[in-house]
Amino acid sequence: MKSQAVLISPSIMCADLCNLEDSVRKIENEGINTLHIDVLDGYFSPSMPLGLGTIRALRKITDMDFDVHIMSNNNEFFIKEMIDIGVQQITFHYESSTHIDRHLKLIKKNGIKAGIALNPATSLNDLDYILPMCDTVMLMLMNPGFAADKNEKQVAYAEEKISDLYKMIKKKGLETDIEVDGRVSLEVIPKLVKAGANILVAGSTSLFRSERSIAENKKIMEEGIAKGLKLREEN
Amino acid sequence: MKSQAVLISPSIMCADLCNLEDSVRKIENEGINTLHIDVLDGYFSPSMPLGLGTIRALRKITDMDFDVHIMSNNNEFFIKEMIDIGVQQITFHYESSTHIDRHLKLIKKNGIKAGIALNPATSLNDLDYILPMCDTVMLMLMNPGFAADKNEKQVAYAEEKISDLYKMIKKKGLETDIEVDGRVSLEVIPKLVKAGANILVAGSTSLFRSERSIAENKKIMEEGIAKGLKLREEN
Amino acid sequence: MKSQAVLISPSIMCADLCNLEDSVRKIENEGINTLHIDVLDGYFSPSMPLGLGTIRALRKITDMDFDVHIMSNNNEFFIKEMIDIGVQQITFHYESSTHIDRHLKLIKKNGIKAGIALNPATSLNDLDYILPMCDTVMLMLMNPGFAADKNEKQVAYAEEKISDLYKMIKKKGLETDIEVDGRVSLEVIPKLVKAGANILVAGSTSLFRSERSIAENKKIMEEGIAKGLKLREEN
Amino acid sequence: MKSQAVLISPSIMCADLCNLEDSVRKIENEGINTLHIDVLDGYFSPSMPLGLGTIRALRKITDMDFDVHIMSNNNEFFIKEMIDIGVQQITFHYESSTHIDRHLKLIKKNGIKAGIALNPATSLNDLDYILPMCDTVMLMLMNPGFAADKNEKQVAYAEEKISDLYKMIKKKGLETDIEVDGRVSLEVIPKLVKAGANILVAGSTSLFRSERSIAENKKIMEEGIAKGLKLREEN
Amino acid sequence: MKSQAVLISPSIMCADLCNLEDSVRKIENEGINTLHIDVLDGYFSPSMPLGLGTIRALRKITDMDFDVHIMSNNNEFFIKEMIDIGVQQITFHYESSTHIDRHLKLIKKNGIKAGIALNPATSLNDLDYILPMCDTVMLMLMNPGFAADKNEKQVAYAEEKISDLYKMIKKKGLETDIEVDGRVSLEVIPKLVKAGANILVAGSTSLFRSERSIAENKKIMEEGIAKGLKLREEN
Amino acid sequence: MKSQAVLISPSIMCADLCNLEDSVRKIENEGINTLHIDVLDGYFSPSMPLGLGTIRALRKITDMDFDVHIMSNNNEFFIKEMIDIGVQQITFHYESSTHIDRHLKLIKKNGIKAGIALNPATSLNDLDYILPMCDTVMLMLMNPGFAADKNEKQVAYAEEKISDLYKMIKKKGLETDIEVDGRVSLEVIPKLVKAGANILVAGSTSLFRSERSIAENKKIMEEGIAKGLKLREEN
Repeated sequence: MKSQAVLISPSIMCADLCNLEDSVRKIENEGINTLHIDVLDGYFSPSMPLGLGTIRALRKITDMDFDVHIMSNNNEFFIKEMIDIGVQQITFHYESSTHIDRHLKLIKKNGIKAGIALNPATSLNDLDYILPMCDTVMLMLMNPGFAADKNEKQVAYAEEKISDLYKMIKKKGLETDIEVDGRVSLEVIPKLVKAGANILVAGSTSLFRSERSIAENKKIMEEGIAKGLKLREEN
Repeated sequence: MKSQAVLISPSIMCADLCNLEDSVRKIENEGINTLHIDVLDGYFSPSMPLGLGTIRALRKITDMDFDVHIMSNNNEFFIKEMIDIGVQQITFHYESSTHIDRHLKLIKKNGIKAGIALNPATSLNDLDYILPMCDTVMLMLMNPGFAADKNEKQVAYAEEKISDLYKMIKKKGLETDIEVDGRVSLEVIPKLVKAGANILVAGSTSLFRSERSIAENKKIMEEGIAKGLKLREEN
Repeated sequence: MKSQAVLISPSIMCADLCNLEDSVRKIENEGINTLHIDVLDGYFSPSMPLGLGTIRALRKITDMDFDVHIMSNNNEFFIKEMIDIGVQQITFHYESSTHIDRHLKLIKKNGIKAGIALNPATSLNDLDYILPMCDTVMLMLMNPGFAADKNEKQVAYAEEKISDLYKMIKKKGLETDIEVDGRVSLEVIPKLVKAGANILVAGSTSLFRSERSIAENKKIMEEGIAKGLKLREEN
Repeated sequence: MKSQAVLISPSIMCADLCNLEDSVRKIENEGINTLHIDVLDGYFSPSMPLGLGTIRALRKITDMDFDVHIMSNNNEFFIKEMIDIGVQQITFHYESSTHIDRHLKLIKKNGIKAGIALNPATSLNDLDYILPMCDTVMLMLMNPGFAADKNEKQVAYAEEKISDLYKMIKKKGLETDIEVDGRVSLEVIPKLVKAGANILVAGSTSLFRSERSIAENKKIMEEGIAKGLKLREEN
Repeated sequence: MKSQAVLISPSIMCADLCNLEDSVRKIENEGINTLHIDVLDGYFSPSMPLGLGTIRALRKITDMDFDVHIMSNNNEFFIKEMIDIGVQQITFHYESSTHIDRHLKLIKKNGIKAGIALNPATSLNDLDYILPMCDTVMLMLMNPGFAADKNEKQVAYAEEKISDLYKMIKKKGLETDIEVDGRVSLEVIPKLVKAGANILVAGSTSLFRSERSIAENKKIMEEGIAKGLKLREEN
Repeated sequence: MKSQAVLISPSIMCADLCNLEDSVRKIENEGINTLHIDVLDGYFSPSMPLGLGTIRALRKITDMDFDVHIMSNNNEFFIKEMIDIGVQQITFHYESSTHIDRHLKLIKKNGIKAGIALNPATSLNDLDYILPMCDTVMLMLMNPGFAADKNEKQVAYAEEKISDLYKMIKKKGLETDIEVDGRVSLEVIPKLVKAGANILVAGSTSLFRSERSIAENKKIMEEGIAKGLKLREEN
């Protein structure tokens, strides 16, 4: 990692979708300058929360970094749409890609950070040759598209997989970001950060936890991050 | 048609997607109680403007009728999502459907109006047996999903096809609505209504025409509708 | 039709699937020499009741005519399997076929009767040029693959569509069989036969009605057929 | 038709594929200025005779009109490739198209003649609204992609379908070309032309008949055309 | 493994498909209480031996454990059907799955044993994170769906792969079952068991070998198993 | 490798596609007896340079070894076509295959060399069990199908991946060929050969470099190969 800074990437899906401008301002006001945007096409997973029109409209009202996670069976189409809209980072799934190397290059030659997203069950070996091309690897900690199912839990091997990836990155002398998504709750942030995570997708179990304000939740997140980083150093 | 009333169905895609609540209030304030919602999956057409999360959020802030137009290769999934959200009318495309009869019944047994949407090139013969089951037939007057291409024009045979359908409906003694979508501009409303259209999807060439307010555009639409109905009667 | 004979085609799906040999003998003992076999692949419709291994095994224990109805997205594969097994009639769906003419020829050049099956909503115009090549047209009176849903009913336009097809066949001077499938119950047999149907797929609402023996149900079916034929003549 | 001229469109598939330049010169030398090019993708039909690289290379060595027949499940991709190569006419299949109207416009706005190709079993009703947009309708007289199977014959209803289309075109006051493809042999040319065909795809059963030179075959074709036109007039 | 017990899982495909009840009784009478059921959809592999209706019927006549092996491109559909029928173990293929973690959980939360099946060529690395969630890993020793081709042989690397998996399981301190399928003949049972296999799918080359009774074949299998276990211990 | 011989496999795509016979003779005259043939179906990658008819025609005019690289989503179809045409080596992609083991056997039992092709991003672990069955492993050094895009460059990890594979082969005591494809230019040949490559697909950046004759380019290639082999030995 470039530094020990850990980035909070708040998921726009958890905002007030009928008052996005207002939601964006509230997030900006907390000093957060990244917005996590999920692009699901209904085929990769049975879910299609947000449309391209909405993302395009968001782009016009804020200068925040857009951290886009594409979950699709047609990555090329959505990558090109995201490039056209103007985003700052694009991750797409290994599991639905044939031309991974090419897609990474397509993103990067447009000056956008690129990353591979892995489903929980997908092995890290699949990164053997492409890791140096990735600005980020996103580890899904539950199967994407099923967040609405409240019974879905974070996978038991979250820390193990993050830690394995962290070692793999260090061994290759790289500074790849490790982004984690899926029930990244206030409770588990310390151990996920300890294991090596440094971009946290923040949703209904952290930043948008309903019993507190965004500001309060952010404070708890930051404490968890600090705790995690400390534990990581001590390791 | 139940009466000579012609319904204006404003397309939510043309609203301010970052301030939907405000947009909805403005439309409601004009006495309009229908919202046209396009569900495009990126596969039927290369376009995915709006997400299901957004539609679900809209449902919570307004009691307007949702007039949903599904353009998808997976109609069953999206029909079930719309039933779950609670909408008032669902049209889906003949061209991407195998089990049309069943889908129409699935919609109707949930107390929702059901309709078939036809691409411009699709013949009316395909309605031979299912027309009596349809509350609405939606005639696409340009290929769906390509509205952003400003060179795309309404098909030359718009009036002819509307008129043929109108006669087919009358001949069978039915009262099926004829909904039209695709560059339904202020200029062509009189002739489309004359030909038999009675639900007008209203977008950037009519209700949301930028040089005038919604109220002003609505007034011109209503004049066009009145003119069209008069011409239809005289016919 | 070659004669006014109306054929009963009992659906093997309604037999005792753990004791097929016994079931087949019981049907044979009633003087029935046709077995209706549904081949569903789980993709055309969400249902896959019977396997190819089972059909192959059935072929070895009986000389009955196999009247096979393929409901698949891969017609060529299943047609070839049926030819290899040795069946007497194959119908496949218009809705999932690109090379209809070729498939009909493929079946017929193997000495097997060939037919097109149409979903309820599909228009008869689609038969314009291929009707003379068809030994049979099968009209689905409910969407195939959903028989297990007890709420599914026969389509309201069953008689109308049969009658339209009957006239179309007569007009062309053909003797094509009209096979009907989907809630062909004891109650509606007279009117379906009257309208022109002459192969009746017999399932749980007719021959396999649980409150009576197969022999008794068959007798009622025959009475219904006779009544229907009489009404047809009087027409 | 603009005139009673009947066009011969020789299929490049029947040429010497290892010496295309030589083959093209021989065809040009006979005063023929159209080349029929089949684009099959292996999915629409199990056949992929010619590649795009080959068509691109052909374009560089001749000014003949390229009459391209796309048989594909991905029409948009191949249409765009053909536009890029620079061809004079593109037909694509109704059976594998969702956005027919749009594809026709896409071709025509590039100054290229556009047409719809219909499989043997496909009804003419499907042309109800798009016929006026078509420069050509191509009637397949056998299922495309199976020409290599010597047992495949021209469909029995060839004349009937051509004649029906001819009447449909006349009734609408149009001048649409009727192109025919599939065993358009020296023997049947008179009756196909009589029925209304005016572009003849010429392959191994006519222009490339091995027992005679191209010049001799062409002469017989022209006699057959003249005979057919005379019979058409007398009708 | 929980114990050194090795389970025989007889494939119902090898039974008398026209007299399944009788076949099931014969198997039960030998003290076997597991039935191996292959669910092939014709798309994953060109084979569809058994239908869901047949499995449902089997469920009603026996209390044996159903050990279901799904070979499909639509795992979610078939997993849900199996849960609904009520089976005791479900394995599905890694190669056709996107949401592996979720599918395993879906099975397990219904109280059913869950496993991953791997095609011969698939590496064990793909199990890196999901092995602890698996009750069973099924190693295919020939490509599934091609058993009818008598030329198909067991892969040369059968023992090596079983042994590698056995070590992987031991290293992680797990007790995962190793199920093997594909020409698991009387001759190779000792070496497969020695390598670590402990569930043997028994078909036409073992339990259903035609020259002997099921009882006799079972005895030879058990001797082979005992021999294999002894060799494993000695290792 | 059987010897230190390194094979040049000239890509027919780079030849004069309108004068293939002449091109083939020129290549033969240089003492080259292998022809590299790419089979792309337009779906695996958006490219379909060559048709099957062309390959079939080439087969009739030369006895050169055909080294076929299939890039398709329907490997079984194209493998069977190649077997029918009569080629000497077939590689197909791991990424689009479900039944890899079976396809390798299908090729080999027809007396044809078989190999797996890997996209740049694909890990070598996927070869764990099938490497001994492969005569060749083809490493793509750029994503296949995008060669026409002049901005596409060889992947940065070319040497690393070749070297890893070389070690893997040696460790298993095998003699598998390592074929490399994608910008295998005169400049990089020494280092690719040094790393272990021994079949070089030769295209527009080597053998068909326009500023020199094939003979001259071949000479430079051979010098590069010699240099690479020397470096490899010294290693």
